Amino acid sequence: MDKDKRSLTPLSELGEFGLIRHLTENIRLKHPGTVKGVGDDAAVFDYSGKLVVVTTDMLAEGIHFDLVYTPLKHLGYKAIAANLSDVYAMNATPRQVLVSLAISGKFALEHLEELYQGIYLACEKYNVDLAGGDTNPSLTGLIISVTALGEVQKEDVVYRNGAKENDLICVSGDLGAAYLGLQILEREKKLFHAHPDLQPKLEAYEYILQRQLKPEPRRDIIEFLQRENLKPTSMIDISDGLSSELMHLCTSSGVGCRVYQEKIPVAEETARVAEELHLEPVTCALNGGEDYELLFTIPLEHYDKVRFREGISVIGHIVPAEEGMHLVTEAGENIPLRAQGWDGISRE
Amino acid sequence: MDKDKRSLTPLSELGEFGLIRHLTENIRLKHPGTVKGVGDDAAVFDYSGKLVVVTTDMLAEGIHFDLVYTPLKHLGYKAIAANLSDVYAMNATPRQVLVSLAISGKFALEHLEELYQGIYLACEKYNVDLAGGDTNPSLTGLIISVTALGEVQKEDVVYRNGAKENDLICVSGDLGAAYLGLQILEREKKLFHAHPDLQPKLEAYEYILQRQLKPEPRRDIIEFLQRENLKPTSMIDISDGLSSELMHLCTSSGVGCRVYQEKIPVAEETARVAEELHLEPVTCALNGGEDYELLFTIPLEHYDKVRFREGISVIGHIVPAEEGMHLVTEAGENIPLRAQGWDGISRE
Repeated sequence: MDKDKRSLTPLSELGEFGLIRHLTENIRLKHPGTVKGVGDDAAVFDYSGKLVVVTTDMLAEGIHFDLVYTPLKHLGYKAIAANLSDVYAMNATPRQVLVSLAISGKFALEHLEELYQGIYLACEKYNVDLAGGDTNPSLTGLIISVTALGEVQKEDVVYRNGAKENDLICVSGDLGAAYLGLQILEREKKLFHAHPDLQPKLEAYEYILQRQLKPEPRRDIIEFLQRENLKPTSMIDISDGLSSELMHLCTSSGVGCRVYQEKIPVAEETARVAEELHLEPVTCALNGGEDYELLFTIPLEHYDKVRFREGISVIGHIVPAEEGMHLVTEAGENIPLRAQGWDGISRE
Repeated sequence: MDKDKRSLTPLSELGEFGLIRHLTENIRLKHPGTVKGVGDDAAVFDYSGKLVVVTTDMLAEGIHFDLVYTPLKHLGYKAIAANLSDVYAMNATPRQVLVSLAISGKFALEHLEELYQGIYLACEKYNVDLAGGDTNPSLTGLIISVTALGEVQKEDVVYRNGAKENDLICVSGDLGAAYLGLQILEREKKLFHAHPDLQPKLEAYEYILQRQLKPEPRRDIIEFLQRENLKPTSMIDISDGLSSELMHLCTSSGVGCRVYQEKIPVAEETARVAEELHLEPVTCALNGGEDYELLFTIPLEHYDKVRFREGISVIGHIVPAEEGMHLVTEAGENIPLRAQGWDGISRE
């Protein structure tokens, strides 16, 4: 920490992805068993026969969650869910998680019990073993670091980089709800600080709050794809917003895309609350984070397998790279996609 | 965080191990592939044929390290080294690591480059791939969470729980140095705060400082054991102090132990500095943390394989559980071993 300040490059200049790229661009993988290292939803290792999928994710108090309105049980559940979502995004089946915590002095045993209740609930529901971890004191808030492992047959693993021209772009569930849930929680928090005697009004926001506080990774989609014998050409989970993930997927695959505003799935409650907050629903869907839905591409000839499938929307198609990455608005306008990056809309 | 304060149990009442036990005692492993979950140096998973060893460890600024005297490069190296030590303690070979960071605003790119230099250096030296991770902002200091994976043949994995009566207790390297290195760094930090114009005097402390700032996990010991076809009956890495780890090993194995003060390896510089600081060298060896040596037990008949081996000391033997866990002093006294736990000597 003793560098001359004048020669320093602020992290903001690189952005999250630039920073990661910068820090990892000199990696040379040494083992043939490291099938996939940095650069996808999860790392993939080949340990004789089955591939082992490993992903890790850290949640920090004040950055990723606010304990004023996040019940600890939900937080534990969400920490697991977010990691399993990354495992599913490899078309893999989660098997184990490891959980590390840094805990400040303000937490008592009962708080951690609550947190673990949520962790165990998610493990039970998604049939994974909590298989290790590390518990540490912390000088400040709570930090949760989860590592999840999953397995997948060699021929079934799906990366971000396999999308081909004319492939259909599909998305599970609906988008933007988790972001709006967060806005409501923040609004009620401010109201509560101003008027501590007021009860928060949350009844009309049940769906979006649940999407923010207790997201569910899309195991059902992976199971559907397996049943249908339908292997996506590429897949990614939507944690930073559709726009950002679409750009990842296209850039990795060396293609462009065209997605249609009217096809982007937005729940009724999401649209209503967006209006209430004077936001465009499509902006929330494109740039709001934490939806934990799956974004994937399939060859055009499989259209029939997904077109009537509830919970999957075909939102556009892959085009050559030179045609760029665009959203086609309801008015027929082509708008270039933009990623929000680290300082994304969801954490402004 | 809204519990009635009167009904709360402070974490200090349970201690670290009690807390972990409390939080994990209801785990039921669901997969035959989860060979070992919580409760050893690393989790072990069976993915067809080879076992996958996974361990995770978190380092928090102000708790595990002080950036006033810890160069970031060393910190990165140490974060990896500490995790690999856990992999070796399973008699396994590390293959990959994943690194998650939470970074506060005070860090610039160059700081992270320094940190990663150390991470890459350790990965290079120990032939492991950095294969993933997560980078996040933090409201406060720096948090580093590392997950390491390794492989081991099913028949070669070594747990903590296999020590048998009459087994010899062996330890690699020497003990107490890392703790004393920390004491010197803390002393010089205080002096520097009082007299900012004074240069720290560190020349006479080279060995103990290196042991604190740049520990090396004992790959050589694992390689030696493999060459000699010598499989320990139990093994653990010494991160919290010999006393604490011996107690883990004996409790897990359902045995007692007797170790001899004069056999405990302490380097000359360690003993000299202990004296300088008015500490007992053996106390530093028993209770000082962060040595990252290996503690293991072998059947008596293999004594010849280790007795003249440089870097391995036979410090005692396993006794029946009812005889307890004791240190035999140079005066012939039997002193019960005591663990320091969370508030251990090394971080007072």
